[in-house]
Amino acid sequence: MARTAAILIIGNEILTGKVKDQNVALLAAEFFALGVSLRRVVVCPDEVEVIARDVNELRLTHDFVITTGGVGPTHDDVTIQGVAAAFGRNITRSAEMEERLRAHYKERITEGHLRMADMPEGADLVRNAEVPWPTVAVENVFIFPGVPELLKLKFPVLRDRLRDGAPFATRAVYTLCDEGEIAELLISLVKAHPEVAIGSYIKWRGTDYTTKLTFDGKDSGAVDRAADALIAAIPQEKLVTLKAGSA
Amino acid sequence: MARTAAILIIGNEILTGKVKDQNVALLAAEFFALGVSLRRVVVCPDEVEVIARDVNELRLTHDFVITTGGVGPTHDDVTIQGVAAAFGRNITRSAEMEERLRAHYKERITEGHLRMADMPEGADLVRNAEVPWPTVAVENVFIFPGVPELLKLKFPVLRDRLRDGAPFATRAVYTLCDEGEIAELLISLVKAHPEVAIGSYIKWRGTDYTTKLTFDGKDSGAVDRAADALIAAIPQEKLVTLKAGSA
Repeated sequence: MARTAAILIIGNEILTGKVKDQNVALLAAEFFALGVSLRRVVVCPDEVEVIARDVNELRLTHDFVITTGGVGPTHDDVTIQGVAAAFGRNITRSAEMEERLRAHYKERITEGHLRMADMPEGADLVRNAEVPWPTVAVENVFIFPGVPELLKLKFPVLRDRLRDGAPFATRAVYTLCDEGEIAELLISLVKAHPEVAIGSYIKWRGTDYTTKLTFDGKDSGAVDRAADALIAAIPQEKLVTLKAGSA
Repeated sequence: MARTAAILIIGNEILTGKVKDQNVALLAAEFFALGVSLRRVVVCPDEVEVIARDVNELRLTHDFVITTGGVGPTHDDVTIQGVAAAFGRNITRSAEMEERLRAHYKERITEGHLRMADMPEGADLVRNAEVPWPTVAVENVFIFPGVPELLKLKFPVLRDRLRDGAPFATRAVYTLCDEGEIAELLISLVKAHPEVAIGSYIKWRGTDYTTKLTFDGKDSGAVDRAADALIAAIPQEKLVTLKAGSA
């Protein structure tokens, strides 16, 4: 079994439709490449009690939890309070983070900025050569910003820590089949290749292809066998080779 | 209090990063315009037990639940089983849906296609003049496809049923302020305007603006008063008027 992960996206802006989330796609691709199984994503509002309950549920049922959002200096940034409440810890100001913030903001620094040095008692500051600015972590919960550009800059701090053996191997087969006509075939493939996750996805009004079949697993040989079994089982004229980037 | 909604996105393709979800943004904007408060989004895998547990948790704590995904004819389409399990109901084949599917697929119809006529016992088929193809509903749970184009076509069936009084009013104020320098001001605005949800969002390396403040609420007069209070409180040279589409 691969290690498991969950994401908690904290932000009213997503729930009210003002901002389109970009972080799930970014993190999902990261986890897949690291061989970690992303099992769950939750989007919740900027409310301490809700965050605390979600962090607790997710951290107890997954190997890793990533939170995004709610880490700035304003009133709606309550992720640290939520994580602290989840663990039943007080909040303390990190001397190291305060020093870093003072060095960054210099004479412009405000109490609002300094709130970004607050963290749950006993939190870890995670960093590596690629990402020297610390990321706050409590046990298996890692606290990241919601701004996608910042998340992208900071996530590499976790890659070595999360990586779980081989990455997932994946194959995609594009066809002109209708899902209904291959449903029985897919059931037999699923039975014959239990170590491979097989997915079937239609393209609405697709002309280049109509159904895409995907094959994922930690064992690339098994993934290949499952994909090749599908290819052998459907009429050759229904197989499609897509140009790069057209899927 | 506005009526509340939750979304359950069912699909391994989102969790493995193969497909970027588009449905949350679409539905979040719909709910906001309908005056319904979207409180929670969950993304879960194509697994009956997980779907059942999530549907049960969400339906008992929200006025409406929308599921997307997992409604086609293949082995990985298990939403109907999950919803049926959530309600402890058997699955039955709808004569009306079977007739519609036979009329649609004609001589090409397969048992796979006919699985799309299966639904939890006692389910409702919801339709209206704009959307004649039925949507399956069990009590307050509405089952939609995951393909964004199809979801967009089908969602209007719910608008009249969900609408809750006034839509949310919203204002946005774009500024050249740093969040740290307005954090205290925002705390006082939040206290003075308790019926308005105030959000603060930075733009990473923004040059046209640096911080966007948003004001949401059912009372458009209150929303205006809160936004105008912010505008009055910060230096005029820090206020920015954006060109349409540049935010």
